[in-house]
Amino acid sequence: MVEPSKKPLNILVRYRNSVIRIKLKNDYEYVGRMLICDSYMNLILTEADEYKGNDPSAHYGNIFIRGNNILYIQLRA
Amino acid sequence: MVEPSKKPLNILVRYRNSVIRIKLKNDYEYVGRMLICDSYMNLILTEADEYKGNDPSAHYGNIFIRGNNILYIQLRA
Amino acid sequence: MVEPSKKPLNILVRYRNSVIRIKLKNDYEYVGRMLICDSYMNLILTEADEYKGNDPSAHYGNIFIRGNNILYIQLRA
Amino acid sequence: MVEPSKKPLNILVRYRNSVIRIKLKNDYEYVGRMLICDSYMNLILTEADEYKGNDPSAHYGNIFIRGNNILYIQLRA
Amino acid sequence: MVEPSKKPLNILVRYRNSVIRIKLKNDYEYVGRMLICDSYMNLILTEADEYKGNDPSAHYGNIFIRGNNILYIQLRA
Amino acid sequence: MVEPSKKPLNILVRYRNSVIRIKLKNDYEYVGRMLICDSYMNLILTEADEYKGNDPSAHYGNIFIRGNNILYIQLRA
Amino acid sequence: MVEPSKKPLNILVRYRNSVIRIKLKNDYEYVGRMLICDSYMNLILTEADEYKGNDPSAHYGNIFIRGNNILYIQLRA
Repeated sequence: MVEPSKKPLNILVRYRNSVIRIKLKNDYEYVGRMLICDSYMNLILTEADEYKGNDPSAHYGNIFIRGNNILYIQLRA
Repeated sequence: MVEPSKKPLNILVRYRNSVIRIKLKNDYEYVGRMLICDSYMNLILTEADEYKGNDPSAHYGNIFIRGNNILYIQLRA
Repeated sequence: MVEPSKKPLNILVRYRNSVIRIKLKNDYEYVGRMLICDSYMNLILTEADEYKGNDPSAHYGNIFIRGNNILYIQLRA
Repeated sequence: MVEPSKKPLNILVRYRNSVIRIKLKNDYEYVGRMLICDSYMNLILTEADEYKGNDPSAHYGNIFIRGNNILYIQLRA
Repeated sequence: MVEPSKKPLNILVRYRNSVIRIKLKNDYEYVGRMLICDSYMNLILTEADEYKGNDPSAHYGNIFIRGNNILYIQLRA
Repeated sequence: MVEPSKKPLNILVRYRNSVIRIKLKNDYEYVGRMLICDSYMNLILTEADEYKGNDPSAHYGNIFIRGNNILYIQLRA
Repeated sequence: MVEPSKKPLNILVRYRNSVIRIKLKNDYEYVGRMLICDSYMNLILTEADEYKGNDPSAHYGNIFIRGNNILYIQLRA
């Protein structure tokens, strides 16, 4: 459809080492620095805070999120 | 089935840089300018407003939506 | 199994530019003219009315429906 | 596993132009003459009646049912 | 992993023409003689009784069950 | 990723003829001797007891469990 | 997208013989030493404790968790 460098997953890769915010299908959110991701949207966040609503509910040194649970990812503009 | 240029996903690609409205399976809606999409309907919106019902509930500079959550996309006629 | 020209999706293609009625798994229905479809049953309707029950709830100039949400499609006899 | 002519889907094909009864995962049933089917169990019924429980709730001239919604199909013995 | 003749689906094939009991994910059960099955666990039962709990709720001359709805199958020891 | 002999499914195969305990997504548990399994985690248990909570609710001579319903399997240490 | 050694699943493999904490989609959590994993995120934990909320609810010598049930995995920083 589009040239490879212009696919969404290739843009996501550019956010390695940046802070992203992930919302899962179960409404939990995770904010942390993305260490790595793959084409299934499996990804590892470091120093991640978990939110359910407005308050942080947990902190994780490293968390591996299975991509198929993801609803969307907020990226810096 | 049909010639490639006439497939729905090829028409969706033509809406890059246009404002689209996406409804997810969880009833949330996102209105923003589509930067990019792929054949899974993964896509990135910029300057996106989130709606649950009639009122905007959040604004995102850049949001990466995982395609398998999408119910439908409204395109300009 | 059967010769290609006799598969359901090939028959669906013949309804391009015809008005069809789509029921989604979430019980919403969409009536509009089908511009295009693919083998995943992704399709674009134009001048589409949305129904939840008997009353139209919205109108869309162009709507791209993700095929995996479809329950069935009513075709003209 | 078994020779092709002895697979369930090959037997289903033989019921083209016969009246079958389909039960979907959402408990709706459709009774009509099967015009055509494919290996995903996508199929088109003609002159189909819809049932929710014992009473017919709608009639369709032609209805294309997406195979992944099907629970089972009753075939004439 | 194991030699083909020793896979579960190959054992299931040996129960052709035997009476089996199938439990679906929606808790319905079907008891009948298996005419045929494939590698998706699609199968056709003949002279099948349907159970919801202890009492038979319906009888089918031939029923084609879509494999992905199956929870388990009871086989004669 | 890892050498074949060191994959989880290869370890599971070694438990053929051992008693295992399977928990399904619907919370039912099955304890029996595993006759056979494949790479989809389809497996056959013999002399299996079914549990819903602490009490056995049924006994099966042979039960074929469809792998995609499995949550986890307890193996002897 | 990225070089193989830098994919999330390759990092997960490095945690073999380390204690990890797994959260499933049904909210249960399992803490134990990971013996092995594969590319589907199927994995075996040894000496695993099960949690539903804050209190341990069970202990397993060896537990094989089917990867598609996993929400996320906590890894040591």
